[in-house]
Amino acid sequence: MVDVAVVGAGQTKYGNHASGLKGMWAEAAAKAFASVDGDFEPSVIDEAFIGSIAFGGSQLGNTAALLTEHSAMDGISVRRVENACASSGFAFRDAWMAIKSGQADVVVAGGIEKMNDLTPERKRYWLGVSGDTEWERLAGLTFPGTYALMARRYFHEFDATHDDLVHVSVKNHLHGSMNADAHIQKEVSFEKAAGGFMVADPLTLYDCCPTSDGASCVVLAADHVARKLTDTPVWVRGSGAASDHLALHDRPTITQLKATKEASTKAYAMAGVNARNIDLAEVHDCFTIAEVLATEDLGLTGRGEGGVFARNGEGRLNEGTTTVNASGGLKSKGHPLGATGTGQVVEVFKQLRGQVSSNRQVRDAETALTHNVGGSGATCAVHVFGRDRA
Amino acid sequence: MVDVAVVGAGQTKYGNHASGLKGMWAEAAAKAFASVDGDFEPSVIDEAFIGSIAFGGSQLGNTAALLTEHSAMDGISVRRVENACASSGFAFRDAWMAIKSGQADVVVAGGIEKMNDLTPERKRYWLGVSGDTEWERLAGLTFPGTYALMARRYFHEFDATHDDLVHVSVKNHLHGSMNADAHIQKEVSFEKAAGGFMVADPLTLYDCCPTSDGASCVVLAADHVARKLTDTPVWVRGSGAASDHLALHDRPTITQLKATKEASTKAYAMAGVNARNIDLAEVHDCFTIAEVLATEDLGLTGRGEGGVFARNGEGRLNEGTTTVNASGGLKSKGHPLGATGTGQVVEVFKQLRGQVSSNRQVRDAETALTHNVGGSGATCAVHVFGRDRA
Repeated sequence: MVDVAVVGAGQTKYGNHASGLKGMWAEAAAKAFASVDGDFEPSVIDEAFIGSIAFGGSQLGNTAALLTEHSAMDGISVRRVENACASSGFAFRDAWMAIKSGQADVVVAGGIEKMNDLTPERKRYWLGVSGDTEWERLAGLTFPGTYALMARRYFHEFDATHDDLVHVSVKNHLHGSMNADAHIQKEVSFEKAAGGFMVADPLTLYDCCPTSDGASCVVLAADHVARKLTDTPVWVRGSGAASDHLALHDRPTITQLKATKEASTKAYAMAGVNARNIDLAEVHDCFTIAEVLATEDLGLTGRGEGGVFARNGEGRLNEGTTTVNASGGLKSKGHPLGATGTGQVVEVFKQLRGQVSSNRQVRDAETALTHNVGGSGATCAVHVFGRDRA
Repeated sequence: MVDVAVVGAGQTKYGNHASGLKGMWAEAAAKAFASVDGDFEPSVIDEAFIGSIAFGGSQLGNTAALLTEHSAMDGISVRRVENACASSGFAFRDAWMAIKSGQADVVVAGGIEKMNDLTPERKRYWLGVSGDTEWERLAGLTFPGTYALMARRYFHEFDATHDDLVHVSVKNHLHGSMNADAHIQKEVSFEKAAGGFMVADPLTLYDCCPTSDGASCVVLAADHVARKLTDTPVWVRGSGAASDHLALHDRPTITQLKATKEASTKAYAMAGVNARNIDLAEVHDCFTIAEVLATEDLGLTGRGEGGVFARNGEGRLNEGTTTVNASGGLKSKGHPLGATGTGQVVEVFKQLRGQVSSNRQVRDAETALTHNVGGSGATCAVHVFGRDRA
């Protein structure tokens, strides 16, 4: 079976973009192509998988073909992949499988979203439609509310308080302050983050990620091609994906995301690693409580110990076993829904090649993972990457 | 490399459904599972790919996970695939690649749409957003208009008149009148079809497919599993896909769909067949002119001879070399956007197994093709199937 590597990766800055969707995508793709060592020629690309949800609310069908048409990939087999905020995590998985299938040697995976073209009502609508509609959205439950329920229950069950979430926020703002591509590039103090205005009790402004514009694009290649394209491929060592009930009331527990547990278990097994081997984890912290749960569900810490993990600063850059969200995470780097999953891959690619700014570099990073969640946990894709092939 | 077979396939009746999306999908899935010989257990399914565009306008994110949750596939890796009206053609391609990759043995591909829950304005919107937005939709060009432009130009360039389109309509209504799953089950006379009210000159009511509710689901399996599941697998012998410029003005010609030509060329080559070997072709006749172009672009007839092909009745059931749209096609079977691609596979599966009603059975059908187009030709997936493996 063919091995698969990431050979190029690029993204726009996350934030509020004046340029349109085609321009944003073209920029991310051009950066990805340029990051491939040597003279990369996009005409060698066989397939593309592009994640998006609302696409700025304009073009909604055939968006993937519209993007490849405007980025030197016209004519190829391309499709949009949608799994709410996990759209490009699955686009990446499907691109990986396309190469594994032997039907394609070079494949693009990417994602895009333009949230700030939407009116506040449409933004709320497009975010809401990624959770359960029948039982949650139409009853008025928004995503901050969904995750607030998880946080309240977590505080009830385990040794944790809102202060632990504040530690997550402070850490991710610190990391993001060093990331030139981040939506929010400023540190926040513990006191400021603890005193943010309430969004959905107990979650305050500093517990919630922003909604960003952004595009991200990565180039994957089969082993026999990857070595010709670059001297420093980043190998995809494991892929796992799973789904769960959309509505919280259908789950046996809301302090654990089953899809994360199953996806990561599969990805670790395929990669032949365990959580202790992960030097860098880009996890889906749409809300700070989501990062606390993710550290547990991914096995970076024990069940019920995510609050302590955050409190002790174990995920801080180069302080514990695993640096969590060196990019700033969704909280600080930003969250352009469909672009987030492959945006995590961009970070991991640069970190494993030692190509981020020196103050943000995870030391001796050999193995990394990305963790991309759709909605409140209905879909999840986890990938394990390594500088070495196995 | 593993060979892939379709081992089960089912669909709802196309038309106007009172039941909701989850119920429609569960019905299609249950029929697909039941069509697998033996006691098929859905717990063996590894992955699912589900095509949809508007999903009835309600749930719009994470819809694929919502559907698998309610059809005995909860927990699996699943994603929505969107390429306008070619959504499930690409879902099928991606399911096929997932098995080829060696990462999955049993995979579901399907599609769903509920057009009749949408208000007329929203229906027009959701159809419109699958064409080009910037240059076409916002300038008022709808899909009937897009295809009317193609028809007018076709009449100008070649030996063809509107009467040739009427022949397509009459044929597809005849075929659909024998299909218990079809949206419109009635014959129309040449005179009636020729005199339909004008929609977009020269296309009349009888040149335009209806917008339907419907769901379709197929089960694919790797060769080593397929033989255990059924004695009569239908083999996927070739898959091809391509894209094109969304806006008509960017294409060198509008009387030919480049994506269809490229997708079918690849699919034929992989299958080791040519157009003369195809006993049954389910082609994307969203408008009658689209079938005329498809017969040319797929090589069933020569360039500029699609009108003559229709006039001579060469696509009629068991009359020419290739029966075109034995199901009734989009024109008469109906067009539930995201469900159409895998719905074509349902027809081919049943035809190649000799399981359609006797009056509609293509005699001695050995090799068949599905042709699924997104928008006005921006995306296209073509698949070749055989009773024999190669």
